[in-house]
Amino acid sequence: MTVTRTHRLQSIGGRLAGVTDVLPHRPPTPADRVGECCTPLAPPAAALLKPDLAEQLARRFKALADPTRVRLLSLIGSHPAGEACVCDLTAPIGLSQGTVSFHLKTLVDAGLLTREQRGRWSFYRLIDGALDDLADILRRF
Amino acid sequence: MTVTRTHRLQSIGGRLAGVTDVLPHRPPTPADRVGECCTPLAPPAAALLKPDLAEQLARRFKALADPTRVRLLSLIGSHPAGEACVCDLTAPIGLSQGTVSFHLKTLVDAGLLTREQRGRWSFYRLIDGALDDLADILRRF
Repeated sequence: MTVTRTHRLQSIGGRLAGVTDVLPHRPPTPADRVGECCTPLAPPAAALLKPDLAEQLARRFKALADPTRVRLLSLIGSHPAGEACVCDLTAPIGLSQGTVSFHLKTLVDAGLLTREQRGRWSFYRLIDGALDDLADILRRF
Repeated sequence: MTVTRTHRLQSIGGRLAGVTDVLPHRPPTPADRVGECCTPLAPPAAALLKPDLAEQLARRFKALADPTRVRLLSLIGSHPAGEACVCDLTAPIGLSQGTVSFHLKTLVDAGLLTREQRGRWSFYRLIDGALDDLADILRRF
């Protein structure tokens, strides 16, 4: 059961990495079968997230580890068209356009927002599924 | 519609703050009713997370913004009994007990783990609902 859970986490990790099969499923080993019939004192080593997946997750959580960036995501997500111009974000946030643009760039670099330039203004949109993938990971811990 | 979404976020914020009604629902105002009948160009100011809720969320995400802590949560969550002794965590993580204990304390301070001392060893357990609440917030952005 633990191995199945780990595979689910690693499948999400595949999407985070932009590939579909970084961690293919493996057939059950004798050690897995022990886990099916009784309660081991500790989970198999496979239950530990791979370092590269843990790095990717931590990088995204780091982008969320700032109250201004959390508010920006909430604000952009609440815009009826699902996207917001930077010119509509500075006043509600109450910070300068330069500071808001810095936080938006951090969210773009973390793979949580897209940015599109239209004339003088930049428009930002939540990347489909990016926050849902993080939510799935948290629910499966 | 946007206001309802904001109230859901703030309801979760109430649980995060350890209280149930920090942000009581308010009756709809004329501005809300405009939002019900047509699509405004920008969301109402109420769609912006309150600063104190944004601070709480950012503090929890900061605790998750480290690959070792992400791996520790995954490892503890995968233990069959739902809890793990620090003595079972150091070897899989591959760091000293002092370093692992520092990361565990960060997770306890952020309200994601409980710690219980039994004799010589500390045992850690995921706090029920804490990660689910964060996942709910991410899904509703």
